[in-house]
Amino acid sequence: MKVGLLGFGKTGKAVASVLLQSKETNLQWVVRKSHNLEHRSVPEFLGIASDEPGFIHSIEEFSAAELLDRLPVDVIIDFSSEQGLEYYGEEARSRGIAVVSAISSYSRKKVEYLAYLAEKTRVVWSPNITIGINFLMIAAKILKNIAPYTDIEIVEEHFKAKQEVSGTAKKIAAALELPCESIKTVRAGGIIGVHEILFGFPYQTVRLKHESITREAFGNGVLFAANHIGEKENGLYGMEDLLLPYFNLGSACAS
Amino acid sequence: MKVGLLGFGKTGKAVASVLLQSKETNLQWVVRKSHNLEHRSVPEFLGIASDEPGFIHSIEEFSAAELLDRLPVDVIIDFSSEQGLEYYGEEARSRGIAVVSAISSYSRKKVEYLAYLAEKTRVVWSPNITIGINFLMIAAKILKNIAPYTDIEIVEEHFKAKQEVSGTAKKIAAALELPCESIKTVRAGGIIGVHEILFGFPYQTVRLKHESITREAFGNGVLFAANHIGEKENGLYGMEDLLLPYFNLGSACAS
Amino acid sequence: MKVGLLGFGKTGKAVASVLLQSKETNLQWVVRKSHNLEHRSVPEFLGIASDEPGFIHSIEEFSAAELLDRLPVDVIIDFSSEQGLEYYGEEARSRGIAVVSAISSYSRKKVEYLAYLAEKTRVVWSPNITIGINFLMIAAKILKNIAPYTDIEIVEEHFKAKQEVSGTAKKIAAALELPCESIKTVRAGGIIGVHEILFGFPYQTVRLKHESITREAFGNGVLFAANHIGEKENGLYGMEDLLLPYFNLGSACAS
Amino acid sequence: MKVGLLGFGKTGKAVASVLLQSKETNLQWVVRKSHNLEHRSVPEFLGIASDEPGFIHSIEEFSAAELLDRLPVDVIIDFSSEQGLEYYGEEARSRGIAVVSAISSYSRKKVEYLAYLAEKTRVVWSPNITIGINFLMIAAKILKNIAPYTDIEIVEEHFKAKQEVSGTAKKIAAALELPCESIKTVRAGGIIGVHEILFGFPYQTVRLKHESITREAFGNGVLFAANHIGEKENGLYGMEDLLLPYFNLGSACAS
Repeated sequence: MKVGLLGFGKTGKAVASVLLQSKETNLQWVVRKSHNLEHRSVPEFLGIASDEPGFIHSIEEFSAAELLDRLPVDVIIDFSSEQGLEYYGEEARSRGIAVVSAISSYSRKKVEYLAYLAEKTRVVWSPNITIGINFLMIAAKILKNIAPYTDIEIVEEHFKAKQEVSGTAKKIAAALELPCESIKTVRAGGIIGVHEILFGFPYQTVRLKHESITREAFGNGVLFAANHIGEKENGLYGMEDLLLPYFNLGSACAS
Repeated sequence: MKVGLLGFGKTGKAVASVLLQSKETNLQWVVRKSHNLEHRSVPEFLGIASDEPGFIHSIEEFSAAELLDRLPVDVIIDFSSEQGLEYYGEEARSRGIAVVSAISSYSRKKVEYLAYLAEKTRVVWSPNITIGINFLMIAAKILKNIAPYTDIEIVEEHFKAKQEVSGTAKKIAAALELPCESIKTVRAGGIIGVHEILFGFPYQTVRLKHESITREAFGNGVLFAANHIGEKENGLYGMEDLLLPYFNLGSACAS
Repeated sequence: MKVGLLGFGKTGKAVASVLLQSKETNLQWVVRKSHNLEHRSVPEFLGIASDEPGFIHSIEEFSAAELLDRLPVDVIIDFSSEQGLEYYGEEARSRGIAVVSAISSYSRKKVEYLAYLAEKTRVVWSPNITIGINFLMIAAKILKNIAPYTDIEIVEEHFKAKQEVSGTAKKIAAALELPCESIKTVRAGGIIGVHEILFGFPYQTVRLKHESITREAFGNGVLFAANHIGEKENGLYGMEDLLLPYFNLGSACAS
Repeated sequence: MKVGLLGFGKTGKAVASVLLQSKETNLQWVVRKSHNLEHRSVPEFLGIASDEPGFIHSIEEFSAAELLDRLPVDVIIDFSSEQGLEYYGEEARSRGIAVVSAISSYSRKKVEYLAYLAEKTRVVWSPNITIGINFLMIAAKILKNIAPYTDIEIVEEHFKAKQEVSGTAKKIAAALELPCESIKTVRAGGIIGVHEILFGFPYQTVRLKHESITREAFGNGVLFAANHIGEKENGLYGMEDLLLPYFNLGSACAS
């Protein structure tokens, strides 16, 4: 599967590193806003032995049409910003190139635009594109249905400098219809990121816990999305939609 | 729902206490092997304000037929021993009374007998009948399917005097097709019971953890089983079978 | 060591049970406010095989002087209420009987009265008399001195019905000079009690964690206090004072 | 304080990065075996804004005497290998330069040589030079003395590729006089490093837990050692010796 990457900040670099090391994807190019590192080879820059082409281009060097004519891809992966969509949107739509976007928030207008793209191609949008968090969110919803009488609390831990409540924790709280006060926020030292969803039963406790180690976790989420979007029809999907089929274990009958 | 209970050891007492406090069940009788506490009222003995009849009988006092003629029930709950089945089996079958058994292991012959009962009534057999453990077991199977490349380890902690490896941990390992070496056993002090299933991803970790507080947790599992068996057809079920329908969230399509 | 116990509520019973099972103490009597269970034998009531005398008396049956004349003790253990002191205070002082009190809060006047008793005997007062919590509190103070630049957060978890912030967590926060906002409060299901003191370093995290299993933990704290008060001079002590000598490992020199 | 660093592998780089960012140390040079990166500026290579000189030299470029004549230091920090000592040993001894070595194991002969250096200067040797681990080791010894009847277990978690049992866990076990079977080893995914010392009391559990985030943690340990060695007399010290004075809180008397 040929892929192109938009964005080459800290997370973009981590994702590129996972893509290069995966046998399932072949990184054709990286496009970024800045002229920094222009024309550098991504494998060489990241110190990863790979024969994938992957050169870095500034957004000003080529239009998306020119770039995709020279180096066509099956999937565009977007870790840039809300504006990234303006660069490649029309080309993705007209050429039917799948899009995997991890942009944390889009304006209402941009969300409508995603839906417009999704008429003609497959689009995955997931602000926290790790497998772990999205799996826990679905599992937690199921457990809440099984045991609606439990008390659910969310504890999230991050480095001291992170100011607001974790967006992922808020998304979990919303999915479980919990008030904001259910989120307990710990800020200390250099903790990368911990999310725990705690279910208090009268006589037992269940804890669903996710610990981030490095940003490369997003890369594995992208791989999962890129691998699963192929089977889907045109439309707009979240990570949850791609994970859900795994939860359909079939109705059970032991007799 | 009228229920009767076989067995009145430590766990039997804890289960009786949950049944008495639940509005969904009405405890008609307790039958135990020993003559100890014979004819005592269960609510009075446990110090629980309740107007449910619930007297304690020795297994020798009445045959199951006599007892069920006097005090009919909808569900027989079995926390006694492998032999309990011999007391009530035929009556449960012929009268169509549902059975919920938490006996930890049955001989092959007894398992066949369970299947024979299940021809004419609904039978739930679950050695660890807590909701938490059974939920985690299913969730872990799903996560293994989603991310088959992860390393899975099981850590179980129990009180010092517990000699063998936890049966529940072994059951989890079997369900996930893990070798026995994946189970790490901690024995210390008075820990009631902790089971953690750890999924090591390259750049993130997911921990599914269950902590037992008291034996009453089994009571809540029994209530869940008793409440859900009603809708089922005749047959032999595990807790997993009762939980599985909650995992069928429907195929998702965001477009 | 002969001991007497004031108070026979849930915690008093748990403490009595530990005392009866310890070879170091011999329970002479229990005194309680209520007439409930009067003249019952404590070993028999708790179902513990023991030949220690231990009968239950109402506070109205004997004065402390009469009781101590009949059944003298070395240590009075107080799990009653602020008023307990009025019953036995003068006798403890004049007879030089050691006092171990776990009353959670005393009025200012009562604290002064404790100091007055301490002129003539040894008094230990510790609202949370577990070894674990008191050990962690001292260890945390030391770590704060070693690494004053760390961020310290306290997470406490208790059963849903517990309304206020844990008094123990507040005491830890005060000992570490942390603002109240450092305490994160989780309330869910039937959690007995968890306290975690988290130290966030830039590139590592240290967690000091205490989990209560049952109230009997207080009994072990009482045993520790009773065993260590013997070597002390008259005075008023906290659990910390009894633990501190263990922290003096001697100045080290490896050459 | 002027410092020089031996070794510039992954951990050496992480330590250099902490040293450059600390106001307490001024990095004068890095010496390494390989000619790789020779004459590069450390701040420039690591992308850290700093006006500290810090250039990289091969061990073959200068003798230690020549280097120290040009760029004298107060402390030599050694993250190279057992052989590093041969480069700078005599000069450190004759010039009275303090040494902080984090080499994981020295031959018996090299340990004797460390003692020989320590006759004329101050030497700190600590294979795991993090503050967290060394603090926990001392705290655990104290708790074992306080409650010798507890069951102690060690759980260590690391990335899948780590083959042997953690050396740090073995050191903790030795310090607490525990058999090797007390160490439970979890290997999964990309876990950086977790060590938990668990104390099982009859009715409570105490967990002392250390989580590594990145190798930079060693840098903070080096800073601590470099800052504390100044006050010491000549001699050979471990991290424990530097931490111990913080545990001497003075004998307590509340009266």
